[in-house]
Amino acid sequence: MIMFQNDYVEGAHPAVLQKLIDTNMEQSVGYGEDPYCEEARARIRKVVGREDVDIHFLVGGTQTNLTVIDAALRPYQGALCAQTGHINVHETGAVEACGHKVLALPGKDGKITAAQVKEAHDSHWADGAHEHMVQPKLVYISHPTELGTLYTKQELTDLRKVCDECGLYLFLDGARLAYGLAAEGTDVTLSDIAALTDAFYIGGTKVGALFGECVVISHSALKEDFRYLIKQKGGMLAKGRLLGLQFLAMFENDLYMEMGRHADRLAMKLKKELQEKGYRFYMDSITNQQFVIVEDTKLQELEKEFLFNHETRYDADHTVIRICTSWATKEEHIEKLLAAF
Amino acid sequence: MIMFQNDYVEGAHPAVLQKLIDTNMEQSVGYGEDPYCEEARARIRKVVGREDVDIHFLVGGTQTNLTVIDAALRPYQGALCAQTGHINVHETGAVEACGHKVLALPGKDGKITAAQVKEAHDSHWADGAHEHMVQPKLVYISHPTELGTLYTKQELTDLRKVCDECGLYLFLDGARLAYGLAAEGTDVTLSDIAALTDAFYIGGTKVGALFGECVVISHSALKEDFRYLIKQKGGMLAKGRLLGLQFLAMFENDLYMEMGRHADRLAMKLKKELQEKGYRFYMDSITNQQFVIVEDTKLQELEKEFLFNHETRYDADHTVIRICTSWATKEEHIEKLLAAF
Amino acid sequence: MIMFQNDYVEGAHPAVLQKLIDTNMEQSVGYGEDPYCEEARARIRKVVGREDVDIHFLVGGTQTNLTVIDAALRPYQGALCAQTGHINVHETGAVEACGHKVLALPGKDGKITAAQVKEAHDSHWADGAHEHMVQPKLVYISHPTELGTLYTKQELTDLRKVCDECGLYLFLDGARLAYGLAAEGTDVTLSDIAALTDAFYIGGTKVGALFGECVVISHSALKEDFRYLIKQKGGMLAKGRLLGLQFLAMFENDLYMEMGRHADRLAMKLKKELQEKGYRFYMDSITNQQFVIVEDTKLQELEKEFLFNHETRYDADHTVIRICTSWATKEEHIEKLLAAF
Amino acid sequence: MIMFQNDYVEGAHPAVLQKLIDTNMEQSVGYGEDPYCEEARARIRKVVGREDVDIHFLVGGTQTNLTVIDAALRPYQGALCAQTGHINVHETGAVEACGHKVLALPGKDGKITAAQVKEAHDSHWADGAHEHMVQPKLVYISHPTELGTLYTKQELTDLRKVCDECGLYLFLDGARLAYGLAAEGTDVTLSDIAALTDAFYIGGTKVGALFGECVVISHSALKEDFRYLIKQKGGMLAKGRLLGLQFLAMFENDLYMEMGRHADRLAMKLKKELQEKGYRFYMDSITNQQFVIVEDTKLQELEKEFLFNHETRYDADHTVIRICTSWATKEEHIEKLLAAF
Repeated sequence: MIMFQNDYVEGAHPAVLQKLIDTNMEQSVGYGEDPYCEEARARIRKVVGREDVDIHFLVGGTQTNLTVIDAALRPYQGALCAQTGHINVHETGAVEACGHKVLALPGKDGKITAAQVKEAHDSHWADGAHEHMVQPKLVYISHPTELGTLYTKQELTDLRKVCDECGLYLFLDGARLAYGLAAEGTDVTLSDIAALTDAFYIGGTKVGALFGECVVISHSALKEDFRYLIKQKGGMLAKGRLLGLQFLAMFENDLYMEMGRHADRLAMKLKKELQEKGYRFYMDSITNQQFVIVEDTKLQELEKEFLFNHETRYDADHTVIRICTSWATKEEHIEKLLAAF
Repeated sequence: MIMFQNDYVEGAHPAVLQKLIDTNMEQSVGYGEDPYCEEARARIRKVVGREDVDIHFLVGGTQTNLTVIDAALRPYQGALCAQTGHINVHETGAVEACGHKVLALPGKDGKITAAQVKEAHDSHWADGAHEHMVQPKLVYISHPTELGTLYTKQELTDLRKVCDECGLYLFLDGARLAYGLAAEGTDVTLSDIAALTDAFYIGGTKVGALFGECVVISHSALKEDFRYLIKQKGGMLAKGRLLGLQFLAMFENDLYMEMGRHADRLAMKLKKELQEKGYRFYMDSITNQQFVIVEDTKLQELEKEFLFNHETRYDADHTVIRICTSWATKEEHIEKLLAAF
Repeated sequence: MIMFQNDYVEGAHPAVLQKLIDTNMEQSVGYGEDPYCEEARARIRKVVGREDVDIHFLVGGTQTNLTVIDAALRPYQGALCAQTGHINVHETGAVEACGHKVLALPGKDGKITAAQVKEAHDSHWADGAHEHMVQPKLVYISHPTELGTLYTKQELTDLRKVCDECGLYLFLDGARLAYGLAAEGTDVTLSDIAALTDAFYIGGTKVGALFGECVVISHSALKEDFRYLIKQKGGMLAKGRLLGLQFLAMFENDLYMEMGRHADRLAMKLKKELQEKGYRFYMDSITNQQFVIVEDTKLQELEKEFLFNHETRYDADHTVIRICTSWATKEEHIEKLLAAF
Repeated sequence: MIMFQNDYVEGAHPAVLQKLIDTNMEQSVGYGEDPYCEEARARIRKVVGREDVDIHFLVGGTQTNLTVIDAALRPYQGALCAQTGHINVHETGAVEACGHKVLALPGKDGKITAAQVKEAHDSHWADGAHEHMVQPKLVYISHPTELGTLYTKQELTDLRKVCDECGLYLFLDGARLAYGLAAEGTDVTLSDIAALTDAFYIGGTKVGALFGECVVISHSALKEDFRYLIKQKGGMLAKGRLLGLQFLAMFENDLYMEMGRHADRLAMKLKKELQEKGYRFYMDSITNQQFVIVEDTKLQELEKEFLFNHETRYDADHTVIRICTSWATKEEHIEKLLAAF
């Protein structure tokens, strides 16, 4: 079977793995305080264009989301996000397990707007009974979203502005950041994100790492004692250098962006040719996730050879499937898939 | 000002207060293990028609909801309820603070249906990624709802059936239970509720008590060690007899129902006469909460003399107000209000 | 049976109850925002000698402790307290249920010292692995302690000083505060406590109220959004005026102190005469809790007529019992008890 | 610098790394449901001698401890453990962050006894106020302990017996299990542990893996829905096969035990020769952790070339240091260290 159901069915990019091989027999101090982590931090500060950020490496996305959000919120505060947001749907209530309500807003194409955030904030404070309600304090967005879409620079700037006005934190989940940054058509750069958010993370697991997410924190309130929280939530890797090493491999040259471009190019090739074949798309994505509407009979046939994620039923006879490319996707597999369609 | 904004702007029914006065200088053991609590439990077991239930007295509604729900759920499980449900909107995330997600369903008139519950359950378990989602385990309903509406016996029976099929707990929030049971037109009795739910509570605070809610638990899994949880959540009143005494006063004769009938009769009088005057209602309620659509200019005038709760904007010129009657509402105040309308 | 096992086997002081009776048929807004609560707040600000404090009324002690402590701590921070501290022993892990570790120190006579606090703080920060340990952030003391003992003004001043040096909050649990303030031999006044702590509470339940604790907060960080937390933890009484009224009754004249003096005087009478009879005391208390070492055979006999709390075994043949007096204790009952001894 | 401060300053055993290299370019389903994890589970079931156990792979020790303990306890229940237990000291309150109190018992050499557990259980239930106290429900032990010591088979059997009598779960933290199982002088086997506990884990991180702990659950109540909890707590690795592969490498032959034997042999060599030189030991350990009492001046000198963990001050002039060997320790480094001593 050729797997397209997600972007973590693979191992690591060979250059990432090589780094682990090369250093395997060395000794180093634990918990992310080793020289490789330090070097990776320095490198990433350069790449994101801010020297004043704190950088931490965690193992996975759910862990990263819950740790950042728990760092940001007092017990009665909640996180605004799109109804489709990962923290609202696919993390088994990890944020709630830390005591915080996820305040879901009806998203459009996986995104929320500055106007929605403003309205949520204003209506909270205008309500005479606001002390009886969860206070919005953080805005969670994902970029790319769970539906493959991207925020524009203007949209991010507007969110930043409204967060400043309302005293809210802006946190960006970049589990698939490479695929967003490398998309043809985006006007958002890594330094834009570092400039416009209070915290965000650069995803490794869904890109070329074995595992690992790199949290970049610019707001001082979120920086304080963050390592205590990482440890408490079980996210502090003993052999922390493994995280630093992988991010070094991905950022000491252009590898991270290159992996993003590879996946996006194949995704767009797929999209273009399927559109030419007359296939409709559930979402207009320019990143590595493509949501195609497929007749069920056709789907059954395809699934003899390929695996997809079933996103939702489209109608009585059609399913929306998600096709993910990644840094590891082979061009010949895309061609094979196109041929099968 | 005459207050109609809610049903807890009052003190206690004189008969309830008298009970406290009569016993004030007695000594008794604490924490609800005194003879008055025992007597009240025995009485309520009779009234609800089940000898096999555990009965606990707590101080307030939020406390009661969070304690019962925390008793019912394992950490990754959540509570299904209507989007308008009190636990979803007006308890400052108390359920989430215990670690559990509230799984809000789009209600109709404040209610949810057995079909909705079934669908939520089935779609969870049908989803290949269900371990990544919060598992529905308890159904929370309020009766009367936050919008004054009532479930029918058939609706409750259907909910019970679906909960049995799906392995879900059914918990009924009876903060205003008297006003529901006493409504003309309901076919639901207290013993129906005891027979059809796994746990429910009989509200005292919003009826004739100074404070106090009486939890009735029939499901054995919820009974176990419940007092530990009451204590941990801060709900165990040291002078617990105060709760037993008040419920005794309300249940040693027909007082609880009588208070409900009084409030409902005045609410229906108000409704009927306002309808005759041409006023429209936002919700067709037969209980003590009435939701009237009022022109803003009219409202301003009324609010010189009366206080209401503003439920929501209706349109550019109209507001939906909530008018609550209670056991303590004076008929002359209703007449004065009608005159002012 | 005559009950000496604790100080909440009683009802309310008649003057407190009278206040509830007098106002019972009035209407007022809920949740502690009524004029009686406002008046009580103003009065208590005067009595404690600080106008800059926030004052909140909660129902019970466990609830108060958990709410204040949860307001003070970030998730990885803990509360230092004596091993015998109420939060460590008798609140079913309420602080832990909010996510925080209680960091118990070996107390002496129920108390901890500034030196112990300093040592706990310093050794935390000196430990290279401190991020792997719970960070001490709040000092919890009770006054009187669970063993009836009192801090001196010097001890409190030293604790304040060390908390300032170490960036710790100082929180004083005054569940039995009247009995501490009124003790002959104490040099600590209510205004000392208000001046030296970041937050404390004036206990009502164990003194003359039906229920109720009055939290006094001076540290601005603890003030922020405190009412959200009260609501979330289930401690916001709907008919909040009941709390304001009771504290008004206790503080609009000297009643609170008078109740304390009454209980302490009877406790000291008991102590003195038992000492004269040769009884030994487990703890040298000058407040309303007396810990007497009694032979088991004697105890059995006494317990035909009187109830005590069994504190601990003293040796094979002796038990340490706790005898509590209160505002309500009758002199004749003390004499009867003395006679029986 | 040669590092002896802990057993996770290394990379992975070459055979473990090779497994990752060999499979790197394969595709597999995520979250531990791939064939390698299945194969590793089958293998480990064989090695532990029970087919009826559930096996899960998690990333790190703190995560594993908090997930198992949270699975076991209802909100008001706590975990008994030695005062020196990892969950009590070095996990930043991770168990408390899940809402549960750690009930620390005074250990001896890092261990607790069946008699202590019985006493804690009995005294809880004998206390009239037990509902006001945290209910002990799980016994946490580590093997080897944090002080390098081991339980005997008899001690484990006694703990099992008392847990059965008292209705407690027995959970064994095997972060360093290899070093315990391989010790000369232990009579405890892996199948003993599987037979005597309700859950335990086989540590990978501190042995030869890059990371990874293997949880083995035999009690059915702990098995239910365990994967939901792993996900919620952030412990579910997307590329889960990495865990399966590493455990396969360690268990498809005798590698796990071999690594244990290597470390233990070098530790015992160190111990024997240091004893011969007249050095005293703080703890009589037969595993890979050795606690040596060293004069401070000597220590300063040693630390020019070697790194140790400072365990505690011994007296004014001496420090207790921890020296860890591991699967990766080179014999020549031990000799160099011995020469330096």
